Amino acid sequence: MNPTDSQQASPWRLAERAAAMNPSAIREILKITERPGILNFAGGLPSPETFPVAAMREACAAVLAEGSAVARASLQYAASEGLPELRQWVATEMGKQGARVSPDQVLITTGSQQGLDLVAKVLIDEGSRVLVETPTYLGALQAFTPMQPRFASVPSDEGGVSAQGLRDVLQKGELPRFIYLLPNFQNPTGRTQDEARRGQVLAVYRELGLPIVEDNPYGELWFDAPPPAPLLARWAEGVIYLGSFSKILAPGLRLGYVIAPPQLYPKLLQAKQAADLHTPGFNQRVVAEVIKDGFLDRHVPTIRARYKAQRDAMLAALDQHMAGLDVQWTRPVGGMFVWVTLPAGLNAQALLPQAVEAGMAFVPGAPFYADQPDPRTLRLSFVTSTPEQIERGMAMLAEVVRAAVS
Amino acid sequence: MNPTDSQQASPWRLAERAAAMNPSAIREILKITERPGILNFAGGLPSPETFPVAAMREACAAVLAEGSAVARASLQYAASEGLPELRQWVATEMGKQGARVSPDQVLITTGSQQGLDLVAKVLIDEGSRVLVETPTYLGALQAFTPMQPRFASVPSDEGGVSAQGLRDVLQKGELPRFIYLLPNFQNPTGRTQDEARRGQVLAVYRELGLPIVEDNPYGELWFDAPPPAPLLARWAEGVIYLGSFSKILAPGLRLGYVIAPPQLYPKLLQAKQAADLHTPGFNQRVVAEVIKDGFLDRHVPTIRARYKAQRDAMLAALDQHMAGLDVQWTRPVGGMFVWVTLPAGLNAQALLPQAVEAGMAFVPGAPFYADQPDPRTLRLSFVTSTPEQIERGMAMLAEVVRAAVS
Repeated sequence: MNPTDSQQASPWRLAERAAAMNPSAIREILKITERPGILNFAGGLPSPETFPVAAMREACAAVLAEGSAVARASLQYAASEGLPELRQWVATEMGKQGARVSPDQVLITTGSQQGLDLVAKVLIDEGSRVLVETPTYLGALQAFTPMQPRFASVPSDEGGVSAQGLRDVLQKGELPRFIYLLPNFQNPTGRTQDEARRGQVLAVYRELGLPIVEDNPYGELWFDAPPPAPLLARWAEGVIYLGSFSKILAPGLRLGYVIAPPQLYPKLLQAKQAADLHTPGFNQRVVAEVIKDGFLDRHVPTIRARYKAQRDAMLAALDQHMAGLDVQWTRPVGGMFVWVTLPAGLNAQALLPQAVEAGMAFVPGAPFYADQPDPRTLRLSFVTSTPEQIERGMAMLAEVVRAAVS
Repeated sequence: MNPTDSQQASPWRLAERAAAMNPSAIREILKITERPGILNFAGGLPSPETFPVAAMREACAAVLAEGSAVARASLQYAASEGLPELRQWVATEMGKQGARVSPDQVLITTGSQQGLDLVAKVLIDEGSRVLVETPTYLGALQAFTPMQPRFASVPSDEGGVSAQGLRDVLQKGELPRFIYLLPNFQNPTGRTQDEARRGQVLAVYRELGLPIVEDNPYGELWFDAPPPAPLLARWAEGVIYLGSFSKILAPGLRLGYVIAPPQLYPKLLQAKQAADLHTPGFNQRVVAEVIKDGFLDRHVPTIRARYKAQRDAMLAALDQHMAGLDVQWTRPVGGMFVWVTLPAGLNAQALLPQAVEAGMAFVPGAPFYADQPDPRTLRLSFVTSTPEQIERGMAMLAEVVRAAVS
């Protein structure tokens, strides 16, 4: 089909919101990083080495066993709320983190990305104010954008949003519909909000009646100690909490969950039903089978140990190779990412072709800002490279920076 | 948690569109049909007897085999467009039905319900006019409603939308964004648009530049002869086509697809990425493995034969037991449903409790109308009951009707 001809003949008229929906900047950027043999720190993927293939294989065989009572049920239409066993598991796990959650508050979603889409549909009107961190998770900006909010970035430091920054932003406009937060090992920065900061900012949220969408895909990936209790445990009626099986089992299952206050749950459920009827029942049954005997208690520590060694390798390599350069980076205590700030005057996106030429790739930081991007920033993932590759890759990056500043 | 307390304390403010999102009327209705031992014709589920459990088990084992090259890839994040093998399969299958489709036009979705959600996001503004059949698929109304269209029902008969009805509706208001059609074995009526009617109404669509969303989940479930070629084969640039694996393999996999004109595809892809990143890659790999050697060519005929015998049983039972009553019903040549119109003055929803008391359940037809419901109508599914159960169920329904008119 000739696109020009078909455009001329097109009977389609797009919705206004479609104008704001553009190909992901990162998607375009990542294309230039797809080169054989490149040391790739640009991805946001968990390490495939951590995927429990054997446990998945056994669980599939059990769910689909000849004569299995659940085989056909796992392949049939299912309840929009999700599988009762999984909803109960989520409620129990949250209880261990100090949050009193009823299974009736748990909605199983097609990945936690879908939770963001449902939140946007139920809470955002055109022009609604929505607060985000500086910088924030790009996928959340993409999920919220079709509902046409006005984003405002809250000044943030190595502990996430600051109480003063929050007050300043709140004074400048109407009360936002919510603030979107990733308190643990944030994507993209790797930073974590500590206990004291959680208390300070929560006082502001509660005082002003500013509700929170708390996204926690990385919380289980701590290295030395678990992160502080979730915000959900501190303000039950003011928090929608999003969780995921993507980083502790496998993202290709697309299995996440939303925990919502009882009065919001029916609207999120209705949005879920309209969006895809229900999360694949087969995937839910298989995961329930995998995790039923405490599998994650044995499996997740192996991911933590692996990622910690990789984090150590990256920080050591940065310490070594960036010596003498005015480069800063975060020191994550969990998760998958290090956030780097290059010397003043440099532009990470402009440097990327040189880095790729040298043999390594990163993601420029600009797309992670809702407004006023800092062009010096970039994100490095440490979880899909070996310590040796990390060492070589950081050396290459340092060379590129050194050439640029000299 | 006390709902009254939490409502008073709630910091949440809902989006305007949330007011239109209400618990499914059918969901509430179906609750009264959940009684042990009831003969249930109310569901919209395919027969679980048709689910290929053994083929699924073998495919899962192959995808996750020790040393399998695709095992880890099937569990990793994947492209938003979908698995290349599945996109190619869809394009090839559509070619057999006379539609020239490139794999680049195929977007794999989390069930075809998600296709409806993406279409709504990309094409519907608040107040946009959207045309639907009378009656139409309830799930489409639910998927479109959050984007706040104004629905208009086009007068329809046993052949679906009529050309004159279409012209009448189009004269009364602005050009709609699209018309939503289920040309084959429609849910809820079971009716099919024949070749002549497709030609007549397509002339109107093309003349006026009214594009079409063609939904075809049931098209493969024909009993004696395949349905006419899809509208997509007749007007490539004016049709978005939705297909599904739910009725030919299993709905619990949540696997469907959208075929879009090249100039619309990028917007639907962006909406898909924002909605759930991608359809579960594991499910896509497993289905690609199941279907790769012509499995469906052997499997789907067994579903057709089963459903045809059940359709025969239902029509025979209705002929026998409704004799002498002023009751009408459709005679579907494929699919899963018969649509019944009770004598004037009766109300199907009001009769449901008596039917359940008598031992059978149906779905009242009213929720399937975008406007001006016909309260005499009801939907019967014939695919999850044996011929003997169908015979008994129709006898019960006839008794309930007989009691109501006497």
